[in-house]
Amino acid sequence: MSYHHIQELAYEANMQLPKLGLVLFTFGNVSVVDRSLGVFAIKPSGVPYEELTPAKMVIVDLDGKTVEGALRPSSDTLTHAVLYKHWPNIGSIVHTHSTYATAWAQTQRDIPVYGTTHADHTTAGIPCAAPMSDEMIKGNYEYETGMQIINCLKENELDYEEVEMMLVSNHAPFTWGKTPAKAVYNSAVLESIAQMAYLTEQINPSSPGLKDALIKKHFERKHGPDSYYGQS
Amino acid sequence: MSYHHIQELAYEANMQLPKLGLVLFTFGNVSVVDRSLGVFAIKPSGVPYEELTPAKMVIVDLDGKTVEGALRPSSDTLTHAVLYKHWPNIGSIVHTHSTYATAWAQTQRDIPVYGTTHADHTTAGIPCAAPMSDEMIKGNYEYETGMQIINCLKENELDYEEVEMMLVSNHAPFTWGKTPAKAVYNSAVLESIAQMAYLTEQINPSSPGLKDALIKKHFERKHGPDSYYGQS
Amino acid sequence: MSYHHIQELAYEANMQLPKLGLVLFTFGNVSVVDRSLGVFAIKPSGVPYEELTPAKMVIVDLDGKTVEGALRPSSDTLTHAVLYKHWPNIGSIVHTHSTYATAWAQTQRDIPVYGTTHADHTTAGIPCAAPMSDEMIKGNYEYETGMQIINCLKENELDYEEVEMMLVSNHAPFTWGKTPAKAVYNSAVLESIAQMAYLTEQINPSSPGLKDALIKKHFERKHGPDSYYGQS
Amino acid sequence: MSYHHIQELAYEANMQLPKLGLVLFTFGNVSVVDRSLGVFAIKPSGVPYEELTPAKMVIVDLDGKTVEGALRPSSDTLTHAVLYKHWPNIGSIVHTHSTYATAWAQTQRDIPVYGTTHADHTTAGIPCAAPMSDEMIKGNYEYETGMQIINCLKENELDYEEVEMMLVSNHAPFTWGKTPAKAVYNSAVLESIAQMAYLTEQINPSSPGLKDALIKKHFERKHGPDSYYGQS
Repeated sequence: MSYHHIQELAYEANMQLPKLGLVLFTFGNVSVVDRSLGVFAIKPSGVPYEELTPAKMVIVDLDGKTVEGALRPSSDTLTHAVLYKHWPNIGSIVHTHSTYATAWAQTQRDIPVYGTTHADHTTAGIPCAAPMSDEMIKGNYEYETGMQIINCLKENELDYEEVEMMLVSNHAPFTWGKTPAKAVYNSAVLESIAQMAYLTEQINPSSPGLKDALIKKHFERKHGPDSYYGQS
Repeated sequence: MSYHHIQELAYEANMQLPKLGLVLFTFGNVSVVDRSLGVFAIKPSGVPYEELTPAKMVIVDLDGKTVEGALRPSSDTLTHAVLYKHWPNIGSIVHTHSTYATAWAQTQRDIPVYGTTHADHTTAGIPCAAPMSDEMIKGNYEYETGMQIINCLKENELDYEEVEMMLVSNHAPFTWGKTPAKAVYNSAVLESIAQMAYLTEQINPSSPGLKDALIKKHFERKHGPDSYYGQS
Repeated sequence: MSYHHIQELAYEANMQLPKLGLVLFTFGNVSVVDRSLGVFAIKPSGVPYEELTPAKMVIVDLDGKTVEGALRPSSDTLTHAVLYKHWPNIGSIVHTHSTYATAWAQTQRDIPVYGTTHADHTTAGIPCAAPMSDEMIKGNYEYETGMQIINCLKENELDYEEVEMMLVSNHAPFTWGKTPAKAVYNSAVLESIAQMAYLTEQINPSSPGLKDALIKKHFERKHGPDSYYGQS
Repeated sequence: MSYHHIQELAYEANMQLPKLGLVLFTFGNVSVVDRSLGVFAIKPSGVPYEELTPAKMVIVDLDGKTVEGALRPSSDTLTHAVLYKHWPNIGSIVHTHSTYATAWAQTQRDIPVYGTTHADHTTAGIPCAAPMSDEMIKGNYEYETGMQIINCLKENELDYEEVEMMLVSNHAPFTWGKTPAKAVYNSAVLESIAQMAYLTEQINPSSPGLKDALIKKHFERKHGPDSYYGQS
């Protein structure tokens, strides 16, 4: 059984994080799933980006058990596993501690929709999953983090295929997508949205937010049957 | 009919945006007009900057209809077309989602004149066009965006040849100029002015703004018959 | 007696500071101790990073007296000496004037624990040592700075092997570690934590901070007998 | 008469400004004086840094009249001339519109002494010269700007050899020094001090500022007969 294809993809996607300024040292990880094999490739834990190679990507099954690889996988591996198991249509997950998105997560607030940069990507505020109970933290913490993300979307009646980015309270952002390129793209977009929303509130604490009609318009320019952004 | 000259200019100007730190991914576009041919060259929609070539620039007429090019033009094309049609003396238009200018747009506030860096470029605050009605948004949105820009200048009794930069509410900045170099320059200047104005209000919320005499002096140093900035 | 080994280590660590964006001009210094020889190597005072060489690192004993070297050692040398003398298990010390950590030091406030990025590194707020009395400042200032750091940790009942970073009121941060790589890492992490905490309070002045259970969990993921972060 | 020596120095110093991130486009200028010849070399007006050469530096006398050079000198030339004429011991002047220092200038506030980074360079707050009267602005504006700087220092009973950096209300910073290297260094230090002071007030609006004893101590570490910073 060869896993080279997802190891190569996971390696390339992980290496994008420092290039995009989204990680300091080892504070982030990307995984890429192969649905037919039922496994994903993920960054090894605590290994600096400059020492990564495709072969060092660890292969893990959807219960978070290592299938192949000499190194220990990311300490966040179980969170990735839970999301892949519950969300059949995602192909890749990214976790960073990028500065502005992490600051918002630390405030326990959703990021409001203040402009079209945000609405181009999702029609909702970026949800911030509630803090976990002490029992969840002391129990299977990384598994519970995944469940917290899943349940937060459910409670907000949002679809993981429409909202591909979230904050976890007092922790940091997670993003996902059909492809590793899209999942990494979402992390960079979230960081930019988070910075702009911060500045917007600083300049005008009573900024009115985006009209519903404009939210709908911008999202439909980029998504759905009548979209006209990009090359079809 | 050859459009190479404006395709080359539009390509070069578009490539300046990531170099100046004004765009993330594909969030921006530059167009360059040829008045004698009645067409402009504009970035294709959603194509990453590193994949652009002069030949990929789409040729569009002043009603926004594609004249030449295999790719779909920027989704903001009609906004460019409207501005070229109404403002006979501009040669190029730039649209970005640069961080600080976009944050100001999201607040629906004009950027006040706090210093000479601003007054060197325009004697007025940078206007923020009002939010559109739902009818305008659901209708010909990009056309209406252009009309909103034009009407906002009119209402403020400002001349598009004197004020070459504006914000669109909850959206982002547009700038223009006689040449592509000037239009791109204006986008970078606007971002710098927007950052300084933000910091000014944070440090001193009752900052007094610039005296009229100083606004006039600095603008006239750079513009008009008695200017003495630059090489004549 | 050869000191090349610590000179080389100190040189390499000092050169990391400008690469990580932690210093402007000469505003920082790293030292590396050899416990068996009872000396440490430290950056010479006021020499630009681009002119440094391993041979220019000054060798100083734990009372701060120069043992070898043609150049004057860092003006902060006595602070380093005091810390090495009182804390037998540290191998390296870093001092910078990095922007966000220095701003916090200037406020005389501890940095609260707002998120897991912080809790991954220490279970406590980053302490800010109290301002010195005029007598201490006029006396042996750099020695007293070291004592202020040591006493602040004691008063907060914190262990220098668990909390490896601190602020000195109205001055700037100091960090340390068993190795030069760890001490430099701590300076970069502190700067990131300081920036995130600043943004957190700006976005939500009543941000609740991290639950005790989560502080404990994240610290134990990375540290202690049951840690599972990184490669063992 | 050859001016190559000051043209070369002025060229080198001007080229440092974009490298240090202190200027956007042409928003800054450095001059270098030769006291024995009674002239200074200054950047030509509005010429991009990448097109500068030593030969393009304009030679001007202390009344601001061009002595040699095909290009028009910086529009701020008269301000430089006034300072050279009144302050016999300075060798170079730098003017930028660096972001944070300019934001402070726009608030019309002095930058308070919040920490040792500031006190290492001057014992006083960074003064912000008062706004000019309309008559001064309409008159010999650049000459009056120089007089405003000189008078502001006098009113604050500060010596231009001790305080080598200032803000001009609603305009931007000026710095100077015995050498071009020192004058450029002062511009970068001022920008850093300005950013830290801004952050300090944001984090804690009632930050207490630096004790007099510590201001004195840090300044004397670097300056005066008992200084022990740097290599003697």
